[in-house]
Amino acid sequence: MPEITLVSQNKSFGGWQKVFTHDSVELKCKMRFGVYLPPQTEQGPVPVIYWLSGLECTEANFIQKGAAQKYAAQYGVIIVAPDTSPRGLNIPGEDDDWDFGTGAGFYVDATNEPWKNNYRMYSYVTKELPALINEKFPAIPDRKSIAGHSMGGHGAFIAVLKNPGLYRSVSAMSPICNPINCPWGKKAFNGYLGGVEGDSKWKDWDSTELIKKYNGPQLDILIDQGTNDNFLTKSQLLPENLVAAAKESGVAVNLRLQEGYDHSYYFISTFIEDHIKHHAKYLKA
Amino acid sequence: MPEITLVSQNKSFGGWQKVFTHDSVELKCKMRFGVYLPPQTEQGPVPVIYWLSGLECTEANFIQKGAAQKYAAQYGVIIVAPDTSPRGLNIPGEDDDWDFGTGAGFYVDATNEPWKNNYRMYSYVTKELPALINEKFPAIPDRKSIAGHSMGGHGAFIAVLKNPGLYRSVSAMSPICNPINCPWGKKAFNGYLGGVEGDSKWKDWDSTELIKKYNGPQLDILIDQGTNDNFLTKSQLLPENLVAAAKESGVAVNLRLQEGYDHSYYFISTFIEDHIKHHAKYLKA
Repeated sequence: MPEITLVSQNKSFGGWQKVFTHDSVELKCKMRFGVYLPPQTEQGPVPVIYWLSGLECTEANFIQKGAAQKYAAQYGVIIVAPDTSPRGLNIPGEDDDWDFGTGAGFYVDATNEPWKNNYRMYSYVTKELPALINEKFPAIPDRKSIAGHSMGGHGAFIAVLKNPGLYRSVSAMSPICNPINCPWGKKAFNGYLGGVEGDSKWKDWDSTELIKKYNGPQLDILIDQGTNDNFLTKSQLLPENLVAAAKESGVAVNLRLQEGYDHSYYFISTFIEDHIKHHAKYLKA
Repeated sequence: MPEITLVSQNKSFGGWQKVFTHDSVELKCKMRFGVYLPPQTEQGPVPVIYWLSGLECTEANFIQKGAAQKYAAQYGVIIVAPDTSPRGLNIPGEDDDWDFGTGAGFYVDATNEPWKNNYRMYSYVTKELPALINEKFPAIPDRKSIAGHSMGGHGAFIAVLKNPGLYRSVSAMSPICNPINCPWGKKAFNGYLGGVEGDSKWKDWDSTELIKKYNGPQLDILIDQGTNDNFLTKSQLLPENLVAAAKESGVAVNLRLQEGYDHSYYFISTFIEDHIKHHAKYLKA
């Protein structure tokens, strides 16, 4: 029976924003996660939204700056916010770069040395963590959705595309949509997966490639993307590639270009209400 | 003509969260402040709410974690968030304690050496900064309100009580209400003002004392206070003293005890909507 340890709890919008640590089996290290329990959990189990954060984040950024608690309370959903990588493993090089290693797990299961024993964020966020949440909190196991920002948007997309029917809905803000074709993604996949650009094992972790072959329940993907996002102009995000691939395979993607917005939490907090509402529609249907 | 320099700008809820630096005349150092410009400022000047933060904060905490921008945009008000003390002066002892010196200006004008040349946060937030805001931004000069958290609640109260009619409204969350009778206040006043407890010069900066003598336009003070606030239980805040004094002098104080909430930004963000709404009612009357 896995154990979780309370780190902090703060009342927020009638519910509780809590942070826990636990020993992750997949990642073989102590991990933190945030969980917002809306007031409705006092009456019984509710649906869950998993929020995956971007590069450099911990579990803290979204819960402190995302302003999602109000809408989680309004719609009666739990929000789970995991960390973005294993921590403190002392793997050589893990802290050398801000966009690889610590804080940059990229939500894949690494197959390359020296990462493959610990950097299993995909299995962590899609399997281990949901099992833990379902066991420890008043969650309805089969009503879950997933969303994320930047690297976390990529994480949310692959979680859904690789597991047809597992999630009720998916959305993202400023997502990395085609990692095999952007500098961040190439660096991460080369490190975690090994091999080179174009390898089929890279394509297995790329939303734009996965969406071409998607053959599950109908999806209604919501994406918000700021037009002043410097990572958009640096071709790190490539939402146009995902949209083109989705069109080809008949998957509905609503890409909303938000004039003047950037990549920051100011952008996230502005549109988080729409995203929680989007998920609530499917989680409560 | 004073100069201001843009540090950052992020689009937020249709408006802009900006941060500037300037050379403060009162504090004789470079200071940062945040200013949220709601979309209505594109059409013309709007009222201003000054938000004073608590111990250890900079201008960044409230603008990142307070979740106020949504309501500033909704009600069409500018929010100005100054820093909490002068910075980087190299005054001996300025960085020794978290509750005195840097990050802890207490919104008084110091009269004691070595603080009196720089620690003039009262004059800074009530005079210098509003003059600057009125000059540089689309603000309606005579429509301003003031609010704050903890030490900043104390700052907001004394700003209003020492300047009858200057502000349209005032509110606070978890405010320090009677500094001459709490450990934080005694330490700060002893350092910045000199002398000892009971000095009349201490009383001139104490809300509970000032409210006894208040003789200006009718006030409608809104206070939110969490019941699980550990600084409440440690007698740092003493709202009951302010309420008793206000009752005696006929000033309306609406002290709302919020069950289970603590002293954090999770508390602030939960109730900030009510505070902005409270100010908007008077700012737009």
